[in-house]
Amino acid sequence: MNNIKLQKYAKLLIKKGINIQEGQVLVVRTPVEMFQFVRLIAEEAYKAGAKNVVVDYTDAQVSLSKFKLAPLEYFGETLQWKADGFAQMAREGAGFLSLVGTNPDLYKDVDAEKISLSQKTNSTANKEFMNLIMSNTAPWCVAAVPEPAWAKKVYPDLSEEEAVEKLWESIFVMTRVDREDPVLEWDNHIANIKDKCKKLNDYNFKTLHYTAEGTDLKVDLAINHIWIGAEEKDSRGTTFIANMPTEEIFTMPKRDGVNGYVSNTKPFNYSGNLIDGFKFTFENGKIIKAEAKVGEEVLNDLLDTDDGGRYLGEVALVPHDSPISNTNTIFYETLFDENASCHLAFGAAYPTNIKDGNSMTSEELLKNGANVSLIHYDFMIGSEKLNIDGITFDGKVIPIFRDGNWVI
Amino acid sequence: MNNIKLQKYAKLLIKKGINIQEGQVLVVRTPVEMFQFVRLIAEEAYKAGAKNVVVDYTDAQVSLSKFKLAPLEYFGETLQWKADGFAQMAREGAGFLSLVGTNPDLYKDVDAEKISLSQKTNSTANKEFMNLIMSNTAPWCVAAVPEPAWAKKVYPDLSEEEAVEKLWESIFVMTRVDREDPVLEWDNHIANIKDKCKKLNDYNFKTLHYTAEGTDLKVDLAINHIWIGAEEKDSRGTTFIANMPTEEIFTMPKRDGVNGYVSNTKPFNYSGNLIDGFKFTFENGKIIKAEAKVGEEVLNDLLDTDDGGRYLGEVALVPHDSPISNTNTIFYETLFDENASCHLAFGAAYPTNIKDGNSMTSEELLKNGANVSLIHYDFMIGSEKLNIDGITFDGKVIPIFRDGNWVI
Repeated sequence: MNNIKLQKYAKLLIKKGINIQEGQVLVVRTPVEMFQFVRLIAEEAYKAGAKNVVVDYTDAQVSLSKFKLAPLEYFGETLQWKADGFAQMAREGAGFLSLVGTNPDLYKDVDAEKISLSQKTNSTANKEFMNLIMSNTAPWCVAAVPEPAWAKKVYPDLSEEEAVEKLWESIFVMTRVDREDPVLEWDNHIANIKDKCKKLNDYNFKTLHYTAEGTDLKVDLAINHIWIGAEEKDSRGTTFIANMPTEEIFTMPKRDGVNGYVSNTKPFNYSGNLIDGFKFTFENGKIIKAEAKVGEEVLNDLLDTDDGGRYLGEVALVPHDSPISNTNTIFYETLFDENASCHLAFGAAYPTNIKDGNSMTSEELLKNGANVSLIHYDFMIGSEKLNIDGITFDGKVIPIFRDGNWVI
Repeated sequence: MNNIKLQKYAKLLIKKGINIQEGQVLVVRTPVEMFQFVRLIAEEAYKAGAKNVVVDYTDAQVSLSKFKLAPLEYFGETLQWKADGFAQMAREGAGFLSLVGTNPDLYKDVDAEKISLSQKTNSTANKEFMNLIMSNTAPWCVAAVPEPAWAKKVYPDLSEEEAVEKLWESIFVMTRVDREDPVLEWDNHIANIKDKCKKLNDYNFKTLHYTAEGTDLKVDLAINHIWIGAEEKDSRGTTFIANMPTEEIFTMPKRDGVNGYVSNTKPFNYSGNLIDGFKFTFENGKIIKAEAKVGEEVLNDLLDTDDGGRYLGEVALVPHDSPISNTNTIFYETLFDENASCHLAFGAAYPTNIKDGNSMTSEELLKNGANVSLIHYDFMIGSEKLNIDGITFDGKVIPIFRDGNWVI
């Protein structure tokens, strides 16, 4: 691999993604196969003044062994002390860099009940940590690395080595690492996104109306919702970029204000389980029916994680004509696919998407129309056929998207 | 690598080393480069009924970046919650498998003060965990894996790939994985070692007298000392093997009963720092002088970790004519070198080496002649020239070793 680009990418994640500060702890969560890239990350972090780099390596193959060989009851326990340790690091202001890339077929033959219990156990243990991250107490950044089996899934006609190489190149294009000055490019991109946020915030829409083949959905937005994109601020006021790449502008739906139906347009890779061809039907905010051609059982188990699992937590707008979308590649990875397509998320809302949300308790968030849940998963609904109208409180209908792209 | 031998090795470590029980948690501590072997370990553990496999990957290159780039003060803090989590897992009876293999030259250009502070910080944080392990509350096993830079150091004339291959082969020979039935071979080996322990325990020596070139040392043994070898028992009564390979028979020196001088015969690889050509002078148990041709400063910093750092905690007998010794290879790795050579350890004594020691507090251990310290490091003093006499309480002198080998 081109070592200069790898180093530029590592530096971009540290400097713009997390924006590490002198004396700050950096936590890196990564597939173990990526340990050599993590060395570059650590070096850039220490150069930038990090006090400590804590690496949490995970190995999907080790997890797969457990899924295959251990009985169901062994998925009901996890390391609570570790989840608490992560929450402690978040409270103390560490930066959290997640390197993602998972073979979407990895768990396809695994008992859905085990996956569901394991997921529930982990999200219950990590509830506090997840709340701290979703309310931006600490800076966080999700970025991709070409874990080999994932690369091969994206480019099945190439050898594993070539696929990894090509996926690195795609990542460099999508994150602007291939440009002369990636940091400058990001600054321009951030300015454009902020401009779009301002327009949408000024309209203060009551409802968004989505129409496309298989989709006719009305989504009320939370009162005092805020559209956010690209750059956010942590509780210390330091800016960071939560997703690299990022093209989305997102806000908070009103928990009980969603009605109609919506169909997905890209597969949903739920940590190694592919779910596809699905359609949700909503009534007063709740998904009352979830049908799927692939993975219906896993999907319904996931939605049933808790009371908030069947309600929306995020509405995000992404033009069909985006740099990622234009690669014409299905990445089977939410980080890319969500930035190539309008999407919604079921599960928890981001408290940052509502005025004063970061200081609200779960009860207050619920009262203000924000969904609360242990989970939060994006699913893609954008296509070149999607139209979206914004409906204002005084009944005006403003076209926002036509044929998948911005018209505002 | 020969996958059948790798699998046999993984199985041996799980079945004989840790002796994992149904529903038990396995913790694996490993250099990150070894992740593919860890997959085999995890598979064998789950097959054997493990409830969970927790892998703690470490990367010496990431640590090296910190040593090179971070200021001294950043080495004074560590993750206490993680140390506490490990202690909790030990109290709950998890098995701890440590896969070792470190490039002995890795930290050679690093500031000794940083290494010393880092070591002290870590051992202070892990004090409870270390005490639990040293008193066999939970089963543990240390085994080797050929981390590439280490393999290259052992076999400098080979390519890295060939060196790794050759080191795997050596590991297989030393751990009997190359035999038809490694488990049976281990059972025979354990029986031989137990037989030797019985003889030494029956003599109940007052003092051991070591003589060789550069060595004239009298070591009193603790009252009620116990010689142990090969197989031990955890607090639940389950047998395990703490080192694989293991050739040593070891017991507890009396803290204040060591006088004379001793010279090392193999280099001491102190986690990436090579220390060599050293001589310790003892007075009433204490190392009052530590001279070294290589690494004298790091060595003295290490001895000064705490009050117990300059006192002995272990006396171990290994014949010069052992399978490991006969490879005529310097491995720069304590696990092998200690099993190819008589050795001593400075720092904490094993409570298991004295009658009722496992139920004694630190104060009680001290009162009974056991050394207490945050650290415990073996150093090699065996050679083909070493003679050892045992002196009984009634003044009889019994030759134990002549020219480096057993005569008892």
